[in-house]
Parts: sequence; C-alpha cells; structure tokens
Amino acid sequence: MSTPNYSALGFTHILVSLDGPVLVVLMNRSKQRNTWDGTVANELQEIFALADKDDRVRVVILTAAHTAPAYCAGAEISGGWDILWDAESKKEGPHAHRDSGGQTSLVIYRCRKITIAAVNGHAAGVGMTAMQLPFDFRFVWAGAKLTFPFVRRGIVPEATSSYLLPRLVGQSRANSILLTGATFTPDSPFMQGLYHQILPTREEVLPAALAFAKELAATTSQVSIAVTKGLIQNSGNSVEENHLLDSRGIRELAMNDGEEGIRSFLEKREPKFTGTLSKDLGSWFPWWQQADTKHRKSKL
Amino acid sequence: MSTPNYSALGFTHILVSLDGPVLVVLMNRSKQRNTWDGTVANELQEIFALADKDDRVRVVILTAAHTAPAYCAGAEISGGWDILWDAESKKEGPHAHRDSGGQTSLVIYRCRKITIAAVNGHAAGVGMTAMQLPFDFRFVWAGAKLTFPFVRRGIVPEATSSYLLPRLVGQSRANSILLTGATFTPDSPFMQGLYHQILPTREEVLPAALAFAKELAATTSQVSIAVTKGLIQNSGNSVEENHLLDSRGIRELAMNDGEEGIRSFLEKREPKFTGTLSKDLGSWFPWWQQADTKHRKSKL
Amino acid sequence: MSTPNYSALGFTHILVSLDGPVLVVLMNRSKQRNTWDGTVANELQEIFALADKDDRVRVVILTAAHTAPAYCAGAEISGGWDILWDAESKKEGPHAHRDSGGQTSLVIYRCRKITIAAVNGHAAGVGMTAMQLPFDFRFVWAGAKLTFPFVRRGIVPEATSSYLLPRLVGQSRANSILLTGATFTPDSPFMQGLYHQILPTREEVLPAALAFAKELAATTSQVSIAVTKGLIQNSGNSVEENHLLDSRGIRELAMNDGEEGIRSFLEKREPKFTGTLSKDLGSWFPWWQQADTKHRKSKL
Repeated sequence: MSTPNYSALGFTHILVSLDGPVLVVLMNRSKQRNTWDGTVANELQEIFALADKDDRVRVVILTAAHTAPAYCAGAEISGGWDILWDAESKKEGPHAHRDSGGQTSLVIYRCRKITIAAVNGHAAGVGMTAMQLPFDFRFVWAGAKLTFPFVRRGIVPEATSSYLLPRLVGQSRANSILLTGATFTPDSPFMQGLYHQILPTREEVLPAALAFAKELAATTSQVSIAVTKGLIQNSGNSVEENHLLDSRGIRELAMNDGEEGIRSFLEKREPKFTGTLSKDLGSWFPWWQQADTKHRKSKL
Repeated sequence: MSTPNYSALGFTHILVSLDGPVLVVLMNRSKQRNTWDGTVANELQEIFALADKDDRVRVVILTAAHTAPAYCAGAEISGGWDILWDAESKKEGPHAHRDSGGQTSLVIYRCRKITIAAVNGHAAGVGMTAMQLPFDFRFVWAGAKLTFPFVRRGIVPEATSSYLLPRLVGQSRANSILLTGATFTPDSPFMQGLYHQILPTREEVLPAALAFAKELAATTSQVSIAVTKGLIQNSGNSVEENHLLDSRGIRELAMNDGEEGIRSFLEKREPKFTGTLSKDLGSWFPWWQQADTKHRKSKL
Repeated sequence: MSTPNYSALGFTHILVSLDGPVLVVLMNRSKQRNTWDGTVANELQEIFALADKDDRVRVVILTAAHTAPAYCAGAEISGGWDILWDAESKKEGPHAHRDSGGQTSLVIYRCRKITIAAVNGHAAGVGMTAMQLPFDFRFVWAGAKLTFPFVRRGIVPEATSSYLLPRLVGQSRANSILLTGATFTPDSPFMQGLYHQILPTREEVLPAALAFAKELAATTSQVSIAVTKGLIQNSGNSVEENHLLDSRGIRELAMNDGEEGIRSFLEKREPKFTGTLSKDLGSWFPWWQQADTKHRKSKL
C-alpha cells in the first residue's frame, strides 16, 4: 500500500488534505478563476492515481476554494490553444495529440475509490467535462452557471464528454447540452439526473459532499465499491456476460468483506469492513481491457 | 404449445393462477417476508419459462400476498451466504458460481410475454434486482422502501442489475442508487423513470397492474410484443443493423397479425389478433446469440 | 459544394424554402393528414441528403403546414401494407425488405447539419419514428397526441425507433412507450427528456424552432457541429476509444474554426466561423463504418 504524505507533495495548483478517509482536493487558483492548464492536469492525474492506490482513502472530493468566483472557468486559453498541445506530439501531426482533459478523465473514471465533484461555483468547458463527468457523484450550487461551449469555440466537446454525458443522462439531453453550447443552471430540465444533490448556497456544497462521503466511508466496503464501479462501467456486452461477471464478484467478495457484511446484518449493527484493494482484490480484477492511450513518446 | 395446469404444479413458495390471459404469480412466504432462497429461484425460473411457451399467457405479473410486510426482503441469509452457493460449483472454485438471482433475471428478461412486477411492499436486494429490473413494467406502492444494499453488505449488486439499471434510468442515477446502498421511496429523483405507475396504497398495486395487463392483452399482438421486446433488448450494434432487423420484423409480421392490424384499423374496430408464438414466430427469431451461462455440471 | 435551387426541385409532397441558413421543410399533404408514402420517403431522403452537402444550410427544420390537423398521421395504409413494399424486394422474400421509414431515419440521422423536428400537430407511427427520433432536437405543441401504435397493429416499431428511443430516454421509458402502443401528450412522464421545448399552441412551434435555429446558426461552427454529432452518435466502444477520437477532433478543428473561436473569445465578441464541410472536414471523418443497407437491386 502506498501512503503518501499529502501535505508534502509539492503541488502548486491544487491543495490536498486527508480528512479521515476523505481526500479533499481544492482547486487553488482563485485569481485565475481556477482555469485549466498542463499543471492542473498533471496534478489532478497524480492525485487521483495516488488516491487509487492508498488504502486509507475511501473517497476523493474535488472542489474549489470559496474565494474563487468559479469552480473552473475552462482552459487557460488567453495565449491560444497552444496550452493544449504537447510539443512532441505536435511535431508528429494531428493524430498524435492526446487531450489533457481526456487523460485526466480517464484517471478519474478509473479511480477505484468513490469520487465526488463538489461544484461550488460556475463551470465551463473542461470544468464541466473532466472535472465533473467522470465522477461517481456530482454536488452543485443551485446558482452555478454551467456550460459546454465547444461548438461556439470552433472545437468539439473533449475529455470523453461525448461518451460519458449520453450514458449519464441519455442522448436526447446530451444533444440539447452539447450541440447548443448554451449556459444552464442545475434546475434546467436538460440537467435532470446529472447531479446527486443541488444546494442553495455555494458554502453548503462542500460540507454536504463531505458529510455524504463520510457516511459512505463508514458504511460501505471499499472492495465492494471498487468492483461495483467496475461492473457499472464495464458491464459486459450482453446481459449474459454481465451475469458471469457479477456472479464471480459476489462469490469472491462473499469470502472477504461479505463475511463481515453478513455478521453485522445478523447482529443488527453497523459493519466494520477490513478488506482493502491492495490485499483483497483478486487477479480477476480488472476483467476488461484497459487500453493504453498515452502517446508513444510520452514520458508519463 | 404447452398448456400446463397451473394449479397443479406443486410449487411451495409461490402461488400461481391464470386469470384469462394473465398469469398472476404470488410470493407466498409472508411469514418469511418473502425472502429469496434456492426454491424461490427455481420456482420463478420454472414459471416464467412455462409462461414463455404457453400461448394462452399474454402477461405475467409477479406480486406478493397482501399479508406480507414486504414484496421481498432480500435473500434468506440468516444462515450465511451459503444459501447462494451450489455445492457442485462451490467445490470447483469461485469462477464456477452462477448467481441464482442472475439465472432468474435471465429467464424473466428473455420471457417473450409482457412481464410486470407489481411491487406492493418493501423491497431489498434481490427483491429490487431479479424481482424488478428484468421486467418490462414496474408498478409500485408509493410507501415502499426500496434498497440495493450490496455495498453495505460487502458484496456487489447481483442479478445483472449493474447491466440493467444504467440502461433503464441512465448511469448517473444508477451510480446514486448502486454505490450508496441507501434506501429510497419511489418519489426519489433517483428512481425517476423506473416505475410505470406509482399507487398511493399497497392494495391498489395489483389491481392497477391487472387492469393494465388485461388492456394490453386485449389490444396488442403477442407476436408483435415478442419481436418488439427482442428489438429493444437486442437492437443491433449500430443504427444500420437495427434498420435491417426492424425491416425484417415488419415484413414478416405484416403477412401475419399485421393483416388483422390493418383490417381492424380500416374497419375502425378493435383488432382480434390470432398469431401465436408457437406457430407464427419464424426461424429468424431470435436473431441474436443467446449465450449458455449455466454451470457445466448443472442439471437444470 | 452543392447549391441547389430549393424552390425548383419539383417536389410534390413537401415544400422547401431556404430562410437564410435555415432550410424549412413543410409537409404539404394537409388533406391527407400528412400521411407517409413512398413519395414522402423519397423526397425527405433527397432533401436531407442535399442539405447535408450544401454549405449554406446550417439547420434543417421539418414541420407541417398550419392547416394540417396532424404533423403526420402515420403511413398511408388505407390500401393495405402494400404501400410499404418495394416490388423488387417483395419478389425476393421477407429478408429483402428495406423499410422506407428506416431508410429515411438513416439519412436524417447521418445528416451532418443541425436537424430539428417542429412537431406542430398530432403524430402517429412513422410520424413519431422517422419524423422525430433521428433529429437532434424536437419541438412540440403541448396538445399533440403522440403514439407509437405498432404493437396494436400487429407489426413492430420501425424506422430504427427500437434503437434510437432507448438511447434517447432510457430503456424503462422506451418500454412504457413502445410496448403499450398507447397515446401520450408531451407532458407524460414517459416523454420526459424527449423534447427540447414544449409550446402551448401549435402556432408557436415553428417560430420557436426557427428562432432557436437562427441563434445556433449564428453562434456555432458548422464543422464543430458535424464532428460533435459524429462523436455523440459514434462515440467509440470504450471511454479510451472516445478519448482518441475527441483528441483528434480538437486538434484538427483548433487549426481551423478553432482559431476564430479563440480570437473572438479573447476579443469578447461573437465568432464569425468560416469553416465549411466541403473544404474543412478532413479525410479522418467519418471514423466509423457506414454500412450500406440498401437492397442490392435498389437503384437509389
């Protein structure tokens, strides 16, 4: 098991703190309206990869400092799109580009812990995509202005949003959101189903997410969560394939955290699960192919 | 065509009665809160397989006796998970297990008749999964407490629920339901779209489902229903594949129940369809591969 | 680039007019309640294929004349299903039929421009399927009676509706709609998410759609729209595949309309995109296989 000292990782664009089983990641560029650049991408990828491997971490929350006017105002494009290109892949041609929002989405989506986006401010572009869609749960301030402006910027929705959004809320709502580039608030009918909870004030978003996180950390099994996320995200190509997968999952886990699950149920008390990903997740996980999407010259 | 005498099948855990074209299956273990065991699984699989082959049956409704405090309180785990394992496959190792909830889900999902879950009580675990998700329609009592508690028991959502639920209501709501293990009532925003009808009292659930069933039985073609279910569940891997499939479906059925469909339309009267699955479903059905998921030593 | 004179195409069943960047297609058979026949299918396929290739056209709206009692009352079946069969394929057998609704759905779904169905009247059958589901956006009159009556006519849902509807609104609502054949109004819970906007009167539907169309035409890039539609409809088989696709899309477009996108953003003005599909869509588009579904003897 990896047990990093989160206060000594030397991050510059995010602030990280471990609150019991909950890792809180704070966007720390209020003056820049938390805009996205290569450093943000690298630091987010690093922290979610660390959280994935640290058994102490049950939940990761991404949020913004209260001083920020925005959860994330999008990519820092005041100097042009260039901030998005990797020098090496740029030389090689358009096919070689790997979008940093998408690389970050993949790391967050694959993180085997519970992930929560606590959207306590306005969000645009990558602030809607990589910083929200790959998360398990989204909490949001009722007053947040939300926009996927890509078609109004001459580019396309990035960070795997054209894959994730239709699956999260259906293709009809995804069309209304992605093909207009319009700005919505969380009560829009097009946003229905996207947010786990909508809070009246910005200040209530993180506390609500934190209380929810601690309750889940206290009552659920981390092995159960990891395998359940795997089953939802990679459910098999047919109902029969899914049956073979969940049958295996139940059988493996019943010999593990499932034993405490049943004991606590019979004794009518809260469970105390001790299973961890580092020692209790068998070699059958993951059962799906995790494609390597890194550019071949990438050093990461 | 198979025409079993439903009152003489010797079932012990369910009660079955044929009410015209509607087969009503009653969970009959009120004292045990209709918990699930191997016998329940076997009897449900048997009855839905029989209904599938009996041309007289147009609709199957699963419900619980009014005396039951629960539609189904989950698996009968007072003796441990052991009730879930088949002795033969247990000997062979974790990969050999076939979840009885999943086997039942497959039989219900594949049943070519209209299927309705009339959820007139609380439901937990397999009472939410196999006993609701593979059905075409779900009717529910507004006061029902509904929970998928798997991550709080140290296991994972079973009975193909990680495949079915995201497809039924979208992945965002499925996350909120499956990754929390929390208890909801039908008016929860996370349950939106899952239920065809919500009834104020437990007593109204079965009558509403029954009236709906009889209306569908009187107005629809059983061959149309079977092929339409097939098209929804196995729609092809692209819009083009789907076009080839539904084109074939229309052409085949137009020469059959479609003739009465058009005659009754032109004569402005209700149709009287005579097509049956045993004689009017061509060899082109099913067009998809139905994988055999049974354990290789299984005798079923 | 193709620049047809839309008023001189010799159509008999539809009326077509170019209003700036918006092509308005009017169902022109009010006396026949805008029913569907082979001519309607051919003319719709032709007009959407032309619009796809004409760089001047940014949006295509399909609607009905206000004099019509219906947006479309379904297929013209007063003479039997025969209107649906192509003589050549009929000779060859059931496998050879290609549904004209489905052929039309494919052309509309593949159209790389913004497509809007302005449903200003009642709609049944193909008026719900080919004439609504493959569109990007659906506007509707609140009083419209909407029905997919296929299972009550002895046939099956056509025009790729069993593929599109579950993806647009989820499989649970699709079951409630397709397996009942019942009639709904737009405020039905089963229709939730299907319509972009619901208007109180028939007369408001087309103006609302037209204003929306002109706003999108003025603010979005046609290349962005084409690639975004491609990404939503053909998102790849995994989140990783999608990442490779949208990375390519961003990189290609950033060198094109993306330049104006960023300039206008920095200059805080509306963008004036000049990219067109005929000259700015690279050979990497489309990235998916577009199956040929035409009957092999078809002359189209």
